[in-house]
This record gives sequence, structure tokens and C-alpha cells, in this order.
Amino acid sequence: MCESNVYMLGANGDKSLIMESVDKIIPGEKDIYLENIFGERKTVKGHIKEMALVDHSIILAE
Amino acid sequence: MCESNVYMLGANGDKSLIMESVDKIIPGEKDIYLENIFGERKTVKGHIKEMALVDHSIILAE
Repeated sequence: MCESNVYMLGANGDKSLIMESVDKIIPGEKDIYLENIFGERKTVKGHIKEMALVDHSIILAE
Repeated sequence: MCESNVYMLGANGDKSLIMESVDKIIPGEKDIYLENIFGERKTVKGHIKEMALVDHSIILAE
């Protein structure tokens, strides 16, 4: 499966895991909708900073 | 491998393929940097509209 883990980049440069195994991502005006393969859904404030799909990593920042 | 195909959504709702097998995606202010597993790089105008990673699909819009 090709889902990714989504992390939030902190002010001090550390990454905290927001959601695992994310399938669907829909960026909004100031937030991002996430849905994983288990059907969990979450909307978080922020924007996409970078994605490395082969590494299964998506990094958000506020 | 878990790269995705990146499409641009047209005004009439059709999707045109921008780049295949994309690994890295870095959104900018008004454009998006794409890099695929073959080392090809491209910067296109637009923003991420939605992503469905399990379907290997990332849709951009201008």
C-alpha cells in the first residue's frame, strides 16, 4: 500500500506524527483534510511543506 | 514503489498528465516543484487540489 505518514513540523524543527497511513489529502484555504486507510478523518491547520512519497513522508507546517 | 502520477485539472474538468512516478513535491507560493523517481524535475503553476495516494493520483489546479 502506498499511503504516507503525515507529520507537523514544529517551531524548533522537530516533526510530530499527525496521522499514519494517510490515503486522501485535500488542502483547504488554511487547513488540510486527511483521511487514512482505516477511515479515520482529521482536519488540521497548516499547509503542505514537502512530500517524499517513496519515503512515505508528508510534512506539514503552520 | 509508492510514487504518484500528477495531473492538472482543466477548466472543463478533464485531467491532463503533468508527470509520472512523482516522488518529491514541494509546494511554493504559486507553483509546485515536482521530482520523479527518474530524476526529472519540473515546476508548474498551480496548487494541490486533492491527493489519493492509494490510487497513485495527485490532482493540481491553477
